[in-house]
Amino acid sequence: MATDAPPALQSYVVGEWVTPEGDGEPVPNALTGEVLAVSTAAGIDMGAVVRHAREVGGPALRALTFHERAAKLKELVGVIAAHKDELYALSAQTGATPKDAWVDVDGGIGVLATYASKVRRELPNAHVAVDGPPEHLSKDGSFLGQHVWTPRHGVAVQINAYNFPCWGSLEKLAPALAAGMPVIVKPAPQTAQVAEALYRHVIASGVFPEGAIQFVAGHPGDLFDHLDGRDVVGFTGSAATAEVLRGHRAFTARSATFVTETDSLNASVLLPSAATDDAHVQRFVKEIARELTTKAGQRCTAIRRALVPEAAVDAVVEGLRERLAKVTIGDPTDERVRMGALVSASQKQDVERTIEKLLAGCRKVVGDDEPELIGDVAPDAFLAPTVLLLEDRGFDAVHELEPFGPVATLIPYTDADEAVALVQRGGGSLVTSVFGDASDPDAATLFTGIASHHGRLLFVDDVSADTQTGHGTPLPHLVHGGPGRAGGGEEMGGVRGMHHFLQRTALTGSPELITRLTGRYAPGAPRHLDVDHPFTLTYDELRIGDALETDEREITLDDIEAFAALSGDTFYAHMDEEAAKASPIFEGRVAHGYFLVSAAAGLFVKPEPGPVLANFGLENLRFLTPVYPGDRIKLFLTCKDKVTRREPDQGTVTWDVEVLNQDGDVVAAYDVLTIVRREVSS
Amino acid sequence: MATDAPPALQSYVVGEWVTPEGDGEPVPNALTGEVLAVSTAAGIDMGAVVRHAREVGGPALRALTFHERAAKLKELVGVIAAHKDELYALSAQTGATPKDAWVDVDGGIGVLATYASKVRRELPNAHVAVDGPPEHLSKDGSFLGQHVWTPRHGVAVQINAYNFPCWGSLEKLAPALAAGMPVIVKPAPQTAQVAEALYRHVIASGVFPEGAIQFVAGHPGDLFDHLDGRDVVGFTGSAATAEVLRGHRAFTARSATFVTETDSLNASVLLPSAATDDAHVQRFVKEIARELTTKAGQRCTAIRRALVPEAAVDAVVEGLRERLAKVTIGDPTDERVRMGALVSASQKQDVERTIEKLLAGCRKVVGDDEPELIGDVAPDAFLAPTVLLLEDRGFDAVHELEPFGPVATLIPYTDADEAVALVQRGGGSLVTSVFGDASDPDAATLFTGIASHHGRLLFVDDVSADTQTGHGTPLPHLVHGGPGRAGGGEEMGGVRGMHHFLQRTALTGSPELITRLTGRYAPGAPRHLDVDHPFTLTYDELRIGDALETDEREITLDDIEAFAALSGDTFYAHMDEEAAKASPIFEGRVAHGYFLVSAAAGLFVKPEPGPVLANFGLENLRFLTPVYPGDRIKLFLTCKDKVTRREPDQGTVTWDVEVLNQDGDVVAAYDVLTIVRREVSS
Repeated sequence: MATDAPPALQSYVVGEWVTPEGDGEPVPNALTGEVLAVSTAAGIDMGAVVRHAREVGGPALRALTFHERAAKLKELVGVIAAHKDELYALSAQTGATPKDAWVDVDGGIGVLATYASKVRRELPNAHVAVDGPPEHLSKDGSFLGQHVWTPRHGVAVQINAYNFPCWGSLEKLAPALAAGMPVIVKPAPQTAQVAEALYRHVIASGVFPEGAIQFVAGHPGDLFDHLDGRDVVGFTGSAATAEVLRGHRAFTARSATFVTETDSLNASVLLPSAATDDAHVQRFVKEIARELTTKAGQRCTAIRRALVPEAAVDAVVEGLRERLAKVTIGDPTDERVRMGALVSASQKQDVERTIEKLLAGCRKVVGDDEPELIGDVAPDAFLAPTVLLLEDRGFDAVHELEPFGPVATLIPYTDADEAVALVQRGGGSLVTSVFGDASDPDAATLFTGIASHHGRLLFVDDVSADTQTGHGTPLPHLVHGGPGRAGGGEEMGGVRGMHHFLQRTALTGSPELITRLTGRYAPGAPRHLDVDHPFTLTYDELRIGDALETDEREITLDDIEAFAALSGDTFYAHMDEEAAKASPIFEGRVAHGYFLVSAAAGLFVKPEPGPVLANFGLENLRFLTPVYPGDRIKLFLTCKDKVTRREPDQGTVTWDVEVLNQDGDVVAAYDVLTIVRREVSS
Repeated sequence: MATDAPPALQSYVVGEWVTPEGDGEPVPNALTGEVLAVSTAAGIDMGAVVRHAREVGGPALRALTFHERAAKLKELVGVIAAHKDELYALSAQTGATPKDAWVDVDGGIGVLATYASKVRRELPNAHVAVDGPPEHLSKDGSFLGQHVWTPRHGVAVQINAYNFPCWGSLEKLAPALAAGMPVIVKPAPQTAQVAEALYRHVIASGVFPEGAIQFVAGHPGDLFDHLDGRDVVGFTGSAATAEVLRGHRAFTARSATFVTETDSLNASVLLPSAATDDAHVQRFVKEIARELTTKAGQRCTAIRRALVPEAAVDAVVEGLRERLAKVTIGDPTDERVRMGALVSASQKQDVERTIEKLLAGCRKVVGDDEPELIGDVAPDAFLAPTVLLLEDRGFDAVHELEPFGPVATLIPYTDADEAVALVQRGGGSLVTSVFGDASDPDAATLFTGIASHHGRLLFVDDVSADTQTGHGTPLPHLVHGGPGRAGGGEEMGGVRGMHHFLQRTALTGSPELITRLTGRYAPGAPRHLDVDHPFTLTYDELRIGDALETDEREITLDDIEAFAALSGDTFYAHMDEEAAKASPIFEGRVAHGYFLVSAAAGLFVKPEPGPVLANFGLENLRFLTPVYPGDRIKLFLTCKDKVTRREPDQGTVTWDVEVLNQDGDVVAAYDVLTIVRREVSS
């Protein structure tokens, strides 16, 4: 290489940072046009990278539980937060304002934090997660089915888009690592220097075990040739690239999983009834303006098609003119600037060409050809916010062409049915937003007509106007992705987004087998009745299956009377023999269900202080057989599930309770949730 | 056509049965070699078929609720059952014994019945199903997320394999129709006459609306050119065909969904510790023999690789010799016959060629080259049960070649780790079975090592030996499919199998909006407090959101004492001020959680007979704030969800209960499940 050539970005593969030498793609400075670096992975042995992930990273990750992996995601939050200034500074090179960088950097950190928290709350502290209740496959209970999730033994290859080098990568990374799959990160060349900085800190932290994360800073060569049915590729980018990748034999022949998220022609709809309501109109205008300017409109969720009732067209155009006139453009490090540059001059040219095509059926109503730029910047990558108005309602291109920049088209329409048809013309989108009243029947028409074409829908009414999180903002709690043109993928959505990285398996066998392999008590498995009262055992002493069989208690009419008096529950089925008999369900006065649950507690509770600190809830309670005066009840209390808590000296123990009558019929069944003390070594 | 040419099978498309004229594939009689018919769809306008499904069938299906569609599946059970004799007779032509036909016909009916029942129990009687609890996206509760499932607005194209023309089609049909997607059925040519008979009755019944089901009896021509991101293709067949189909632009460019289930090299493992236990060995042998002979081994789930601990090889070979010697072969309509023919002479030749290749590293230990045939049949499609024993342990072909007939290979191995490695060599399978004790640590080693390579695992121990449902038997309750070589698809598994046909969408908005669009009360939505006590309203009168705000009740120390005496629950936190204070959770004696729930019922119950017939359960109970003597509680009871029941005069109503203290803190929250009377017109 000549000494004045831009440096190649480094890659972290097979345990070390390497500097590839060879051709690559330029990493531009959006503000000056200067080439900052070269994005290349030339010479890297991709087979070795895949093997390293599978043989080193995978086993190390799978040795951890879901909660242990979640704790590491939480640790990464601190690691990245400590380097925010550096990431913000690098983001400015890509044209991003501090607010854009906040979306990218802080948004990415937020995904890690949300996954850390959701995994801890929604998945067990174990290597296996159960999916749904057991299926009873034999009449005598000796053969059960239990769906389980376990980590796939492959690698997750994550190919990211240029617009959000941090968030876009971390929203893929978090669910994969939480699930237990090692990751190979491939950034987009245009902003790969930001991703390189991010991963330099992530890897230096050593939070995740070696092999869990590798970083390939350029074209991944023959990487896909090494993938098979164990592996997952997550891709965010253009539909054209997605098509080429998806045709690879890794997917067509070897059944690797391909999760795609491509840009889409997202719509926003102002409902007809809202056309003359200034509050709705102004919210709609504000949302369009915000989506146009955030990250200079380079957002796969941005509003491209704004559907405006005819009666509101003038007001919306006027509103957008006013708002967008205030948008200052230029050097994003200058405090006066509200919108930065597109990522490169060539991206700007792409957008301009698309606008040109759209002008065949549209008129430009907002847009300055030569906007004033603040700061010492080259103009080549700057584009003013641009709004088109569809004039030829038969012009199809507006539903097909996506100007990936600060551009949206207003589409006049007449009624809700037409709005449904127009939104559907997008062929599947990431998100559509609807502005109007919750009680408007047109809201329901829109929902029914377009829900299945979208991964996300946002309805903004008076109640949610100030708290809604934004048309263009994917949240880690919610699925992100969409059908058809949007790629057909699904990411995030909390635990849902981890399912690509986990295999669902129908595990079948005896209750004992299911209990042993899932670590969760399955109905019918042997109970350990030879232990001390399980409420005298600490969390650490308790084993799944430890159980108590209680004495019997007779339920008397006096009990029922006394309970009715104390609780105030004098429902006729408990109090009036004739009326109870007349009901289609009971044969006479029955005990209160809540009394049975109370009496059950009386049978299993140990009065004196012990390891069980509290009963904080109940799940899945069913009253299965009525209990009449003179019936005798007893119960089995069985340790079903144990999960550690954030508090190091406490754990959550779930108990299976089965209350039986004197004939052995189950009268009630439920799960009791308790907090139990742990033995903490001092 | 010449008059003596075999007839073309008919197709049902765009509302009528048509007889294509043109080239097609022969439908053979497996027993005689005669060509019974021609499978062809020549000349059918596939674009029109797709449009008919989308424009006629889809809207008609989506107008029904989940429960209404389930009821129609149940009706189909009776329709098909009435024609079992005809289907059994046609099945015999394909080489199937009555037992094979039972697997196919009665198995298919069973799938319909299970879906009818599971959909009614697990999904709402509505057009939208919610997925998970609401996500709270704003601190003040004014903005929520709720994931929902709605039917995709496309068509489900279902391409079936030849081996189970009824079951294989119905297991795809049931989840699609239940979800609300119209179906185009394409049978395999070899057994298309059975499928044609089945669909003739299904369509004649008129159970499902026109356009919901079309039947294309031959090569579907340019059908895929008409598919896009709204559509789903379900394919069962060879990996080679799957690869070609999956490369189509319908999938690579337009993001149609492709769900594949291809044959796989399923394994069965006898654990080392079971090698000398005759009960385990004999069960293992019996399972291999059953899988070899059912449908003459033409089953995608059949055992192809039987992993045998070295110490058990002789016993297993001997056991299989004994069992398989008793398998009589020939005309499946002859009562003496236990195994029928392969589907065709050419299928037999395929299997023989594969056996030939396997013999390069294996030895044949069971298998008669010229088995005696019972009945007047041509020998061309008959093959004796064949068992190979791997001799060259470095011979890879045994993990790659699949003889799709009555053939399995025994693979000797040493320990559990080797068994894991060998099973994994299959590259992803539908199912593996493991024989041994539930308490054997090797069972856990196998599970951890192979779960993620499988869609289903079967463990057979002493308890489940007599009730397990069979290595090769997919059940509608359990997912069917597998990663990698098995195609990467997932079918059935109850409601899980419907998800391909439903789009998951993150619906976000105000609580009122979420309530209106999902038909389910979302927390924070307006309550209708201006109604009569909601327990005086019938199921039909009740609206979602109808609510009761109760009076306050003070909780006294006397209440706590009385409740402890009555229930017998004298836990120290309720009874001993000092001990309660000493706990890390309470500040003094607290009311029993079960007393709060009981007193809450006292506050909301109407004593006299009314529409509410019974409280049959409780869900999601959490005690959130301790209640101390002197605290006052009141509650809101809100109609959250309504579902009709099988009984026409009853419905299930779920009530959201929020118990508050005098400071407005939520002390307990839960759902109460009740049965409420309906107004039934006489």
